[in-house]
Parts: sequence; structure tokens; C-alpha cells
Amino acid sequence: MGDRDDAAALIARMGEAARLAAHDLALATAGRKRDALIAAADAIRDQGAAILVANEQDLAFGREKGLSGPMIDRLRLDETRLRAIEDSLRTVADQPDPVGEVVAEWDRPSGLHIRRVRTPIGVIGVIYESRPNVTADAGALALKSGNAVILRGGSESLHSSRAIHGCMVEGLRKARLPEAAIQLVDTRDRAAVSAMLQAQGLIDVIIPRGGKGLVGLVQREARVPVFAHLEGICHVYVDRDADPGKARRVLVNAKTRRTGICGAAECLLIDRAADPALRAALVGDLVAAGVEVRAEGELAALPGTVEAVPEDFGREFQDMIIAARLVDGVEGAIAHIRRFGSQHTESILTENDATADSFFAGLDSAILMRNASTQFADGGEFGMGAEIGIATGKMHARGPVGAEQLTSFKYLVTGDGAVRA
Amino acid sequence: MGDRDDAAALIARMGEAARLAAHDLALATAGRKRDALIAAADAIRDQGAAILVANEQDLAFGREKGLSGPMIDRLRLDETRLRAIEDSLRTVADQPDPVGEVVAEWDRPSGLHIRRVRTPIGVIGVIYESRPNVTADAGALALKSGNAVILRGGSESLHSSRAIHGCMVEGLRKARLPEAAIQLVDTRDRAAVSAMLQAQGLIDVIIPRGGKGLVGLVQREARVPVFAHLEGICHVYVDRDADPGKARRVLVNAKTRRTGICGAAECLLIDRAADPALRAALVGDLVAAGVEVRAEGELAALPGTVEAVPEDFGREFQDMIIAARLVDGVEGAIAHIRRFGSQHTESILTENDATADSFFAGLDSAILMRNASTQFADGGEFGMGAEIGIATGKMHARGPVGAEQLTSFKYLVTGDGAVRA
Repeated sequence: MGDRDDAAALIARMGEAARLAAHDLALATAGRKRDALIAAADAIRDQGAAILVANEQDLAFGREKGLSGPMIDRLRLDETRLRAIEDSLRTVADQPDPVGEVVAEWDRPSGLHIRRVRTPIGVIGVIYESRPNVTADAGALALKSGNAVILRGGSESLHSSRAIHGCMVEGLRKARLPEAAIQLVDTRDRAAVSAMLQAQGLIDVIIPRGGKGLVGLVQREARVPVFAHLEGICHVYVDRDADPGKARRVLVNAKTRRTGICGAAECLLIDRAADPALRAALVGDLVAAGVEVRAEGELAALPGTVEAVPEDFGREFQDMIIAARLVDGVEGAIAHIRRFGSQHTESILTENDATADSFFAGLDSAILMRNASTQFADGGEFGMGAEIGIATGKMHARGPVGAEQLTSFKYLVTGDGAVRA
Repeated sequence: MGDRDDAAALIARMGEAARLAAHDLALATAGRKRDALIAAADAIRDQGAAILVANEQDLAFGREKGLSGPMIDRLRLDETRLRAIEDSLRTVADQPDPVGEVVAEWDRPSGLHIRRVRTPIGVIGVIYESRPNVTADAGALALKSGNAVILRGGSESLHSSRAIHGCMVEGLRKARLPEAAIQLVDTRDRAAVSAMLQAQGLIDVIIPRGGKGLVGLVQREARVPVFAHLEGICHVYVDRDADPGKARRVLVNAKTRRTGICGAAECLLIDRAADPALRAALVGDLVAAGVEVRAEGELAALPGTVEAVPEDFGREFQDMIIAARLVDGVEGAIAHIRRFGSQHTESILTENDATADSFFAGLDSAILMRNASTQFADGGEFGMGAEIGIATGKMHARGPVGAEQLTSFKYLVTGDGAVRA
């Protein structure tokens, strides 16, 4: 109880500071926000060595805790990844400012002129796990869109996040913007997460990025609106009319290019009517690439596979593991994905337009692909610059979330003494 | 407890039926949805007499309960209002179908082609008070946007809502769409409202339309995402640079044209630096029109006013009553509205562009107006056809909500065997 009260008091203090900062940010010029982001990028560049030292502390802590290989990979920073963080800040800095943008305008017979313009949302809370670059990306996108942000990173990445957050605050300070515009919850106490989820009136929206544990917590405790960025249980379906070369190339990429990202494929569905030679080739490619293929039924007879258990379906491995099953055509694939998917990203491999149309119409994931790797589920690949993640909910934001989806809007209406009849 | 359990079981059954209907609706053609709406309009026309009989039962019940004049007015149906309901159904029928609309599409250097297309949200719950026409408008807009809907009208309007709902179901039946697409919670039991607010996984979003009581309930109990349509505490600010003629005309219209709608003005703010003759004229016009002006300070010295109490500010009267106060210029008006407003609609009367810009920038209501009556806060007046109401929240939907804002979207991505580097 003491922990929960302390956490609630901490989040209340941070929320009140964020609210004040949000008022200033909503009126801040595009130039000043840009200056802050450039100065933050400069700070990342200048303080790279110190950030890597902090990251080394986190890695040591993570190894001690026995984190898996992919988890350690997500946690690790190096020169290349630091450069990517810096570049991402500069990219966001140079994007057009969404605040105040006139999205639509029109005249009415009553003589009114109506404009719909983008506004910041207010105060955003971001709850994320090990990847420390989110501290910079989420901070930058919130600032760009005129929102104050409260960041709560994973406890494993606390030192790295603290170092990166210091650079963001330096940017704010140099641009004379309020430091409370980007705050970090600087504690490993998990009660802070619950406090954020319940901070009605202090935080306007929570963006939770994480797996099963966070899903459950959000469902049980969230009283604040949520843009869910939860599991990526992505499916690849290889149809009877797939081009074998494309299917094999896309499947290996979707699973193995990077296993720790939410767009990595976690389940392979093969049309029962597909050529058995193609089945064998698809599974064989994965096995040859070092993937543990947890196969069901006939597929489990293929060399190098292991027998799947029911829990392997609908599971986010984030590792060199994939579940595999035969399904009865595109309808079977749709039924499987509706039951086991997380509405993130699914890809169909087929040369048949009608079959692809059925897949696109019958499913309601944030991203549906045809003849393309699920690893393209990414704001950068979509052309949005940086992203705060891939939203799997349907309210407000969905798919890759950049600065634009972190805005709301208002109507500005002008008349000349207009009264309603 | 028994009531709550019964209500939860009822909403669970309705929610499951709605979910199944939503799957069909998402794939229903635009033509079939249009047919259902036309058939519903025909049914309203053909069954007008029976609807008026049902409404008479509600009016008798309302008078017995001692409902206020404006409440009775909101509840009342007559030939004209029935015609308006019918016309509204035909208007929605003829609007473009939003589902499947390609909102944006672009190509990427990777060879991917990306389309962003509108999709239904799924299952919508609408909780509303006395106005029975919402049964038709909300049902029609949900259907148009491919969503199933669960309607919970006010207990005062149960007979009227039941009769109108019967017409909507007749439309669905004639178009061979599932009857569970539009369901009415046919009970006066208030526990049903709580059950809807907590129906996670069954209802995707709740639209609450109502006053203070509903606000509190939603804040305490909602576990489902909400598009708040709550109080309309609308302000009219008359600046020192107002044109007197426009200001007097707009103010009387904003308060008196119809007092029971959420866009009616509830508070008059007058610039302390405005001409005292204008002050007197503004208040005098209201008094002459039969408005009770609850005035503060110097304004209370004007003839015909009554002294305001602190609770009169930030209050939605929905009656021939208005609170009135002097403020220190536009900054004073902004400070007052930030503290007492409900982020619905506010109007400034001024000929000064810089002052109007400050008002537009400094406030974050869904609708901000200049030299126009707050009574224009309406989907029809905005050119959106029918509306489900005026959303006062900032997530997803805001301002007048038509069919388009009841949709979400998904990305459809096509490649030719594209893999990510």
C-alpha cells in the first residue's frame, strides 16, 4: 500500500508539472520545438561515451538477471545505434510541424467559414520495455506534436534511459522550453505503472508498448484512454497460388531479419492445397536458417521440426522460433488469425488477386500485406519518419504512430454576426 | 447485486449478438446498408401515428415525474419532428459510404504500395437521455459506418425509443441484414448503464451523451474507451472591440433559440473595458427575451437581473437562465473558460483580428467561434448530415460526430516479394 501511495503521489506531481508544460508547449513555435530537438541530437552526439557507459551498467544487470539473447539485443546500444538515435531526432526536427495545420476548411450556406486544425492532445504517458531508443523517439514525437510526455521505460534500461533523457532535457533547456515537457519516471518501482494507468485528469492518453504482462495490467487497471502498442503476433500465410520464390524469400526475412521487433513473424500458415514440395522448402529454409519450427500435424514430419503444443499458437516468441500449421485455404487462414492474432500485421503470399482481396477484407489487423515481409511494419518504412510504435488498437491511432497521430483537432468557425434560424 | 448481475448478463448477451452482427456488417455492401436506411425511413413514415401514441405515454410519465419544461420539450415528438427523423434517415442513406474509402495512398522506395482505408470500429454503445430521435440518428450513423450498435436511451423515452427502434429493425430485416445490428436495451434498470461501461471486449467504444450525473458515472466506471458527449457549458465572450449590433443579435440567439440543446449558451462574459451602454443593452435584451440573468458584481446592478451564486458558473442550465460576469479582456475570458468550460463550444464577439486569434489559440474547446452563435454547434450546420452528438473529448472523435468519425482504418500494403534489408 505504501508503495502504491508513493507511486500515485509521484505521478500526481509529475502529471501536474506536465500539465503546466503542456500549456506552454501548445503555444510554442515550430522553430523553438525544432531547436530543442536539434540541441538534443547534438547532446546525444557529444555524450555518446557516457551513454554507452550507462548502457554497459544495464547490460551487466540484464545478464545477471538472465535476460534472453533477444532481450539483451534490444537493450544494447553501440555507436551505430546511437547514431540512429541522433539521426532520428534530426529527422523529427526537420519534419513539418503538425500543430495548427489546417486539415480541412469549407464554407457553409449560413455564411460560416469552418476550419479544422490540429492541436496537441495534452499529456501523454508512454510505458515501454527494454529498448532505450524509445526514450528519444517518444520524447521527440511528443514534443514535435506539442504534447508533454511522461516516460516510464523498462527497469532493465534505467541507466541508458536516464542518460538519453538527460540529453532531451538539455535540448529543452537550450530552446528555453519547460524541462517538464519530457519527464522520466526515474524508479524501478512497478507501482508507478499502475499509477500512470489510473492518472485520470493528469495524463490524457497512455501508450503501452509491451507483451502479455503489460496487456493484462492495462486491461485490469487502465482508467486513462490507451493507444495500445501491445503484442505483435504476426502471421505469414502461404497460399496455394503463391509464387514459390517470393514466398521463400519473404518468409525467411519476416522471421529472421530481426526477431526482437514486433513486426517479426511468429506463425507460418500454409495452405493445405499448396504444393508439398513448397511446404518442405519453406520449412527447410527456416530450419537451415537456424529457426526452431514448432510444427503441427503433417508438417511435424518434415526434417528438423519439433512438435508444436497448442500454446505455441497465438504466442509472441521474439526469438528464432516459429509456430507452423496447415490451414484450409484463405478462409482457414482468416479463421486462424482472427482467433490467435493480435491485430498487428499479417502477410499473404499469393499471385491470386481475388484471394488477396478476401484476405484484406476478411481481416482487421492494423496492417495487412501481400507479397511483402511483415518486417516492413515500421514508421520509417511507411515514410513517417520516426515512430512511437505500432498501435494495435482501433481508437484514434493505429499502425505506425508518428507525430501526426499524437494530435487531436478543433474547429475554428468564423461568421459576421451569424445567428441560427 | 442481483440487478447488477442480471444487467451484466443482459449486456453480455447483447454484446455477443452485436459482435456477430458486426462481422457481417463490416462486409455488407453500401447498397444493402442504404436499402436498410430507406426502409427504416419508410417505416417511420408509415408508423407515425403509433410512434406518437408511444410518445404520449412517455410524456404522461414525464409530467407525472415532474420533468422541467425544457426536458418535456426534448422528449416531445410531433409530426414535424417525426418528419425530421425520417428526413435524417434518408439523408444518411444517401451519404457516401465511408467503409473501404481509401483515405490516402502512396508508394515507397522499397517498392511497397501503401493504402490507408476506412474500416468500421466494431460495436458501439450509445448512452443517451430523453431525446428519442437519437435512437434513429445513432442507429443510422452506426449502420452507415458498418458498426453494430447497442442503444440505451433515457428511461423517460422508453416507449418512444422502442417504437422508433422497431422501425430501424424493420429496415434491417427488409435489407436482409442482421437484426442485432441495432439493439435497444429495453429496460429502465440503471444497472444496464454500468454494465455497458464495463463491457470490455464486447463493446469497443461507448458514446455517453448527457449531463453531470452521467459524467460522474463514466469517470468512475468506464473500462471501455469513451467518446464523451457530455455537458455543453458554452460561453459567449463580448470583447471591447465587439460590434454592438452583431454582439446583441448573436447573444440572444445563442441563449434563447433553443435552450435544451448542448450548444445553447450558458454563460455570458463581458469585457470590463467594453462600453457600459453595450453591457446594459446585452443584459437588457436577455431580460426582455425572458431570460433570468444571474449576474455578478457590477452587472447585478442592471435592472431585471438576479444576483449570481458561485455555483452558477460552470453550470449547464438548459433553460432560460444564463450566468453573467465581467472579465479583464480576452485573457480574462480565456482564464474563466479554462476553469469553468466543458470544452464544447465558445464564441467571441470582436472585430479585432489579433484578439480573435488569441481566443482561438488560447482555448482548446472542440469548437471555437467568432461572431457566430454557439447554436451552430451541430453536425447538420457543419455540413455533415446527421450527427450522433458533439464530442467533448479529444480522442478519436471531436465536435460534431457523423458516420466518418465512427470509423477506424487499416493499412493495405502490396509488394512483389519485398523483403526488408
